[in-house]
Amino acid sequence: MHLVQPTQIHIALDMMGGDHGPLITLPAAIQAVQEIPNLLLTLCGDAAVLQRELSQAGCGNHPRLRIQPCSQQVSMCEKPSSALRNKRDSSMRVALELVEQGQASACVSAGNTGALIAMAHFVLKMLSGVERPALISTLPSTAAQPVYMLDLGATVNCDADTLFQFAVMGSVMAEEVEGLQAPRLALLNMGEEEIKGTDQIKQAAVLLSECDELNYIGFIEGNDIFSGKADVIICDGFVGNVALKTCEGVAKLIINQIRATLLSSLVGRIVGKVAQPWLKSMVKGVNPDQYNGASLIGLRGIVVKSHGNASKEAFLSAIRQAVREVERQVPAKIKDRLEQVLIGKA
Amino acid sequence: MHLVQPTQIHIALDMMGGDHGPLITLPAAIQAVQEIPNLLLTLCGDAAVLQRELSQAGCGNHPRLRIQPCSQQVSMCEKPSSALRNKRDSSMRVALELVEQGQASACVSAGNTGALIAMAHFVLKMLSGVERPALISTLPSTAAQPVYMLDLGATVNCDADTLFQFAVMGSVMAEEVEGLQAPRLALLNMGEEEIKGTDQIKQAAVLLSECDELNYIGFIEGNDIFSGKADVIICDGFVGNVALKTCEGVAKLIINQIRATLLSSLVGRIVGKVAQPWLKSMVKGVNPDQYNGASLIGLRGIVVKSHGNASKEAFLSAIRQAVREVERQVPAKIKDRLEQVLIGKA
Repeated sequence: MHLVQPTQIHIALDMMGGDHGPLITLPAAIQAVQEIPNLLLTLCGDAAVLQRELSQAGCGNHPRLRIQPCSQQVSMCEKPSSALRNKRDSSMRVALELVEQGQASACVSAGNTGALIAMAHFVLKMLSGVERPALISTLPSTAAQPVYMLDLGATVNCDADTLFQFAVMGSVMAEEVEGLQAPRLALLNMGEEEIKGTDQIKQAAVLLSECDELNYIGFIEGNDIFSGKADVIICDGFVGNVALKTCEGVAKLIINQIRATLLSSLVGRIVGKVAQPWLKSMVKGVNPDQYNGASLIGLRGIVVKSHGNASKEAFLSAIRQAVREVERQVPAKIKDRLEQVLIGKA
Repeated sequence: MHLVQPTQIHIALDMMGGDHGPLITLPAAIQAVQEIPNLLLTLCGDAAVLQRELSQAGCGNHPRLRIQPCSQQVSMCEKPSSALRNKRDSSMRVALELVEQGQASACVSAGNTGALIAMAHFVLKMLSGVERPALISTLPSTAAQPVYMLDLGATVNCDADTLFQFAVMGSVMAEEVEGLQAPRLALLNMGEEEIKGTDQIKQAAVLLSECDELNYIGFIEGNDIFSGKADVIICDGFVGNVALKTCEGVAKLIINQIRATLLSSLVGRIVGKVAQPWLKSMVKGVNPDQYNGASLIGLRGIVVKSHGNASKEAFLSAIRQAVREVERQVPAKIKDRLEQVLIGKA
């Protein structure tokens, strides 16, 4: 009996992106190929640095770790427009072009978010039927499974059609990657009543209500993002970004308050010793952005954005996520679903 | 030597608003007049209920608790437009009209937020120079003093001029009520760079940078709302509402995670017993909305909104806040400052 040879999955990594560059991305890449036997990684970046670090790690000749030399890198504070114009041989741009040319099936980067969105949009182009890209990620929830939220900052101004397309894309992600059937979709709003919110949101609610192919359940408020009432939460990139970063701020505030309270008494200090690991895991849990990769969807290719300050574990998790999206062929599924929904509407 | 007789402060209370009505508002009113010797309260609501409850509390003839009979009340789920049209003799409307007629200096309500905003706008009218009202409240901060944030949900769509007016109003609140000198004002945005955000926010940033009378420090992100970087944070009502409610959601999620972790082990259960009061105070601290009153500003009169689910303590805190705003004459100060700023711009 022969085991079926699994198809090889080829992913291009922006090795120079993020606050720590190869110090983080290289160990993650090595662990990824050890973990996933059919994974081939192209490491885009400074060839000398990458070759030296690979050799030091004893992986100088690993058959599934290939170096793609790039002479430039996009800095974390560079303007997207400048990166787009001037960084054609950057590790970020080259990784995206490998996807565009069909040589890789996905790109993973921990680099400058604005530049990555602009470059990915420019290089990969939008899927037909999608007007704007969206960043989507999972957030923790009090329910058994995580909740997806989009857009987390790719598209600032969204009209009703864009929000509708985001809903379709979010539904496909939850179905394909999380394995949910008919995921419950909700629009993030400032109230649950129909009369609340901006015109764009009210119009998007009408479009979603009329769509039989989607399981739209209505408006949801900020306090219910984590309650498990919805599987996919849809909003524009400005609101999503503020909400996500506010979570981070609240988590820090609470941890600070707990620390201050614990330190203020002897019993507290003892409790603090015991509670230390919980505090750490809590911060991790509520800082999804810090841990999970966010996928840039709506493009003709898979792009996963890891946090700029990602650890090796976080970058590895972003690679794993890219693998899942390749296996599930997320962009093709989004395109199919959009066509199906548009036929339903016509 | 004669003590100066303090001027009497007259406040109208919507006794029927909120989830619990007089069960909460009456004990708060009684404690307020006991605490503040120059406070006169007009209790708007169902006269029979209020008279009975006052008598039972032994305050049937209190000289500084007057009942203003009202035949209607606004329910918590009523549409603002319907309340405005049909509830002319409601406790909410009558309390606002006492302010409009100059018989009371402020109104406090725990009722339906949308209806209160619509009615207050209609009855009291805007201050000259202000286009739209804003809800402002203090949030906890890791710094020594709290941070003010507006708008928390009164005005959904804000152009640059409106955001600028909100900044002026927020600055006056922080100066007059909190006693801060030259409070640091920041616009809530999805990045700190000048190129980030919506057109409205970018234009508001230009207006604020050019204004010598205000201490504008730039953009701030959601993760810095609570860090003490700014004293007043300005955003539109949609974003502010989502951010505030997201805080509530995160706080609940963290408390849940702590509880679950504590309950999962024996040591944890013991720690949990010790930590119970901290958990409670933490939820309170991060749920500002639950505890502090939010002021509806920009109107020709003082309106303080207590949370619908307010406790006696929370409603009392809203009354105290109204007293402070009357003492500091906040609406007049906002009007003066706006005139001063507009002269500076001309």
